[in-house]
Amino acid sequence: MKSKIKVGLIRVITLQDEELLKLHGRIIEENFPYMKVISRCIPNQPFGIYDDKTEQEAIPKIVALGLEMAKNDIKALIISCAADPGVEDLRSKLKIPVIGAGSASAHLALGIADRIGVITISMEVPKVIEDILVDKLIAKATPKNVKTTLDLMKKENEKYILEAALQLKRKECNAIILACTGFSTIRISSKISRKTGVTVIDPVIAAGLFAWYSTLIA
Amino acid sequence: MKSKIKVGLIRVITLQDEELLKLHGRIIEENFPYMKVISRCIPNQPFGIYDDKTEQEAIPKIVALGLEMAKNDIKALIISCAADPGVEDLRSKLKIPVIGAGSASAHLALGIADRIGVITISMEVPKVIEDILVDKLIAKATPKNVKTTLDLMKKENEKYILEAALQLKRKECNAIILACTGFSTIRISSKISRKTGVTVIDPVIAAGLFAWYSTLIA
Repeated sequence: MKSKIKVGLIRVITLQDEELLKLHGRIIEENFPYMKVISRCIPNQPFGIYDDKTEQEAIPKIVALGLEMAKNDIKALIISCAADPGVEDLRSKLKIPVIGAGSASAHLALGIADRIGVITISMEVPKVIEDILVDKLIAKATPKNVKTTLDLMKKENEKYILEAALQLKRKECNAIILACTGFSTIRISSKISRKTGVTVIDPVIAAGLFAWYSTLIA
Repeated sequence: MKSKIKVGLIRVITLQDEELLKLHGRIIEENFPYMKVISRCIPNQPFGIYDDKTEQEAIPKIVALGLEMAKNDIKALIISCAADPGVEDLRSKLKIPVIGAGSASAHLALGIADRIGVITISMEVPKVIEDILVDKLIAKATPKNVKTTLDLMKKENEKYILEAALQLKRKECNAIILACTGFSTIRISSKISRKTGVTVIDPVIAAGLFAWYSTLIA
């Protein structure tokens, strides 16, 4: 048996709770047992990234954290956010593969299907996803009552998430991207897939998939 | 333990040898043990696809074979060729995910890196790969003495393949796509990766990766 490969993961929200901090890493380890994921989060952003201003504030923190984490023998670095903040910058500064949950999701969707739907938490599809999908982006939907990643945690909103997915199915989307890693946190991708029969792209698993391949030989 | 998920795989070259026919499927099963790959090949193309004419001849055969295979409870269909012949057509006709080795390779590369090199067996990069990479396609290289997929099987050409990879490394490519599934047949991707330190995209493993995700919930 191969020894585990260490991969770094950056949460773009300040989390005090150790379990919550490690949750995305744990989802990746469950799906790709030969990786060990080291999770860290950026400082002083208790509400994460939710608009342009908070994204601009986060990017230098993500880049600084990524450069620091890369000193510790990790074989790849995951930025666990569907907007890919800092990914381009870190790719130019680091030798190891840098994987963004947004670009990973869009590329995974396009490798499987050609009519892509996106579920967002605000009205906008993250730019990185839009730029990759171009004319394969058929439709988007936002669950009722969901404005931030924290709204995804409210059990009563689950039905609205499933409704948004069914809207995309009615528009004949053959893959659905969940465009916020908060959807991964609530582990809803399988449920949506079973409900709709459509391939659902979970952004954290997508990032894990690309990291797994990138470290296959490392 | 989950029972194995059946996935279909089409070889775009007519093969009599059962072992050779099943080889790509076996590579996928080794990397993704929970899939069982059913392999079939198209009739009357003993030299496979090597120019526009042979590609045009192959496409209707691939589409007909894909439609026939899809009747047998497969959960996804892989077209094991870096040119993605028939993929677009089959996606419009089938409900299951259709994965092309060419588009899977290009999307896998872009999810990991941003300066992509391509090793081809002729002077041309397959159009589907070029169209996906756009300005991220930094350089291409063709190993000396390699004109067809069969030339890859000659042991004496291995050094030229490694040389082509080193050329791409010198151009600072941070991922290298092997743009012919014949490179998968000779299982050379790990060797190139160890030699260059660059992520190497094996087209059959790439297709397997996308098929694996697409069937994760199926």
